[in-house]
Amino acid sequence: MALLVQKFGGTSVGSIERIEAVADIIIRQRQQGHHIVAVVSAMSGETNRLLALAKQVDSSPSPRELDALVSTGEQVSASLLAMALIRRGYPAISLLGDQLGIRTDNLFTKARINDINSARLRQEIEHGRIVIAAGFQGRDLEGNITTLGRGGSDTSAVAIAAAINAQECQIYTDVDGVYTTDPRIEPGAWKLSSVSVQVMLEMASLGAKVLHIRAVEAAAHYKMPLRVLSSFSVGEGTRVDYEDEGMQQQTVSGIASKREQALIFINDCSNDGSTLANIVELLAEKGIEIDMINQVNQKVGKVDYAISVPSLELQQAMSLLQESDALSGAKIDSRDDLAMLSIVGAGIKTNTPITGRFFRVLADENIDVVVASSGEIKLSVLIERKYLELGVRALHAAFLTASE
Amino acid sequence: MALLVQKFGGTSVGSIERIEAVADIIIRQRQQGHHIVAVVSAMSGETNRLLALAKQVDSSPSPRELDALVSTGEQVSASLLAMALIRRGYPAISLLGDQLGIRTDNLFTKARINDINSARLRQEIEHGRIVIAAGFQGRDLEGNITTLGRGGSDTSAVAIAAAINAQECQIYTDVDGVYTTDPRIEPGAWKLSSVSVQVMLEMASLGAKVLHIRAVEAAAHYKMPLRVLSSFSVGEGTRVDYEDEGMQQQTVSGIASKREQALIFINDCSNDGSTLANIVELLAEKGIEIDMINQVNQKVGKVDYAISVPSLELQQAMSLLQESDALSGAKIDSRDDLAMLSIVGAGIKTNTPITGRFFRVLADENIDVVVASSGEIKLSVLIERKYLELGVRALHAAFLTASE
Repeated sequence: MALLVQKFGGTSVGSIERIEAVADIIIRQRQQGHHIVAVVSAMSGETNRLLALAKQVDSSPSPRELDALVSTGEQVSASLLAMALIRRGYPAISLLGDQLGIRTDNLFTKARINDINSARLRQEIEHGRIVIAAGFQGRDLEGNITTLGRGGSDTSAVAIAAAINAQECQIYTDVDGVYTTDPRIEPGAWKLSSVSVQVMLEMASLGAKVLHIRAVEAAAHYKMPLRVLSSFSVGEGTRVDYEDEGMQQQTVSGIASKREQALIFINDCSNDGSTLANIVELLAEKGIEIDMINQVNQKVGKVDYAISVPSLELQQAMSLLQESDALSGAKIDSRDDLAMLSIVGAGIKTNTPITGRFFRVLADENIDVVVASSGEIKLSVLIERKYLELGVRALHAAFLTASE
Repeated sequence: MALLVQKFGGTSVGSIERIEAVADIIIRQRQQGHHIVAVVSAMSGETNRLLALAKQVDSSPSPRELDALVSTGEQVSASLLAMALIRRGYPAISLLGDQLGIRTDNLFTKARINDINSARLRQEIEHGRIVIAAGFQGRDLEGNITTLGRGGSDTSAVAIAAAINAQECQIYTDVDGVYTTDPRIEPGAWKLSSVSVQVMLEMASLGAKVLHIRAVEAAAHYKMPLRVLSSFSVGEGTRVDYEDEGMQQQTVSGIASKREQALIFINDCSNDGSTLANIVELLAEKGIEIDMINQVNQKVGKVDYAISVPSLELQQAMSLLQESDALSGAKIDSRDDLAMLSIVGAGIKTNTPITGRFFRVLADENIDVVVASSGEIKLSVLIERKYLELGVRALHAAFLTASE
């Protein structure tokens, strides 16, 4: 008999039929004697419907009011799921952010959880109830509703699991686990039965969409065992674990990719030591994600930078840089035909021949590397977007041929 | 400079355009220097949409979960209205049931307000903010969300107005005040500039739909000055007041009607003294409204009753009565072709000729009275439904010819 936290995303509760299917999953675990806390997202489409209403009122609505508005999405799905369980004769109760004791800071629309007062949650579990927790939401010290930003319900689930010392936090989604690479690109990709948290962190940040990076960070912070499963099929999913020896098992665990990448060239900057810091701060302030930074000192006193950003954010990034006083005099240019390709695995840094083989595989396919970047457990390159699928398949064949 | 509570119903906030129009109304009062607390219902249609979702899950859903679900409707409209005010540069903040300190009992879906801890509400007002309060909702002692049942947002508004000692509680709706009778039946009906709370109570209970009876009861309880206005046009509306001398001004204030009435005949009941109590309790338990009760003792030891109920509830009432052990042996029958017609006014009881004139007017039009009932300030009859419009117009002409 275990205490399990199960998180169900928007597509998993996207309709009444899906909510009934989630009730089936919960009841299956319950019948095995487990205590269950289910954390739910809003029904898919609902958050966008609410945001569209807000945009009709104000193109940049009050963040506090936006959180009060959008948090209703999880309230609706949580109460409907509780109703579905009660109808089948199981004692269930939905709890909202304040009833769950989730206290956050007051950074509306992107709040962070400070602590969880789990008194009521524990009491409901002791009374034998299945608790359906509204994800994504909390309250600040003044009692205002806050939301946790992207991936927020995953973060809620991990934080709740940690607060009540759950045995495992299960993230139910529309795929049945973490794959060696995107099976839509490489049909030979296989599901990993387990993956180390370090590898999972890199894969999430390098483009694997199955888990949000903030949820993995939260799990790593609490050392909470995480499992990714499908709410559409039965299976063991992929377990994210914290065993150090697990780090050595696989040299390369997976191939990650991001399709829409752009590169910004900032040439002839004055080399005063703070230019790069200025650039990064400027973009980070607006939430623009920088994936790679390349610095070249070609001329005396001058420096060139190449910075990769998601294509969607290129226009905003270019405006910010062109208007920046710190970059006056620099030549700023960009290209938007790139993709990022990465291999991730615990053995990459220690097993040096991997790096050579990585570039050899790409060269053999005539794929030019525009920018390269390496880390403890990953190797990333920017390549022309049209070669992305070819690159994924070639690397998968080279590094992940052996069956797991 | 006054402190005003303004309540806006579902049609008043039924679309983004309507919400903007409500913002106009609030800003007009604000510009006159008043402090405003606006209480809102859910956007029209939203509560029904949520109830339909619940019914898809369970034909009789858990009342606690139903309240958690349905209360999101007011949360959405409150935050959208706050956004609209903020966009125009006015400091506004939406507050929910718990933030408003509205404590209720735990009778989910029909809770009653026990008390209001208005600390935060007062603080926001002191800070110069326009408070947008989500109507219809509160929290029980355990922190569960409750809703107040029909007319709940009106009740919220009156209770909040009382808690903060507001000068006036303004109920904005889709008509511009209380009329002498329904203008769709009698185009010569006129708007009353004021009406006593006793008359308003009778008119609400006898079919005038402009104010819900529970809101008038709450206003009477707190002696809170109430005003009914239109959110679709500018005007002074109708003021509900507590001046005793006002009672004497109008002999007959208005003509009220209920179109769909049925009459249940229960004949040959055993006359054991508790039969009527049994009947009333049986129907009241299921929330069936009894408008008139007529008792006749025709035979020794036997008694006949005629009980009027809304047509919509006739079938349920008949089933309950036919299955009741207390009425075994009685003959139970019904007719469903009736309407109720009433005159309401402070002078009706004291000005005895009115009663004679009332029945004379109906007789002159060949309208048969099926059942009659009188009270301190009203006279009601059941007549055949097809004569309803004729009766309203004849009584209006007889009692309300003089211009106000």
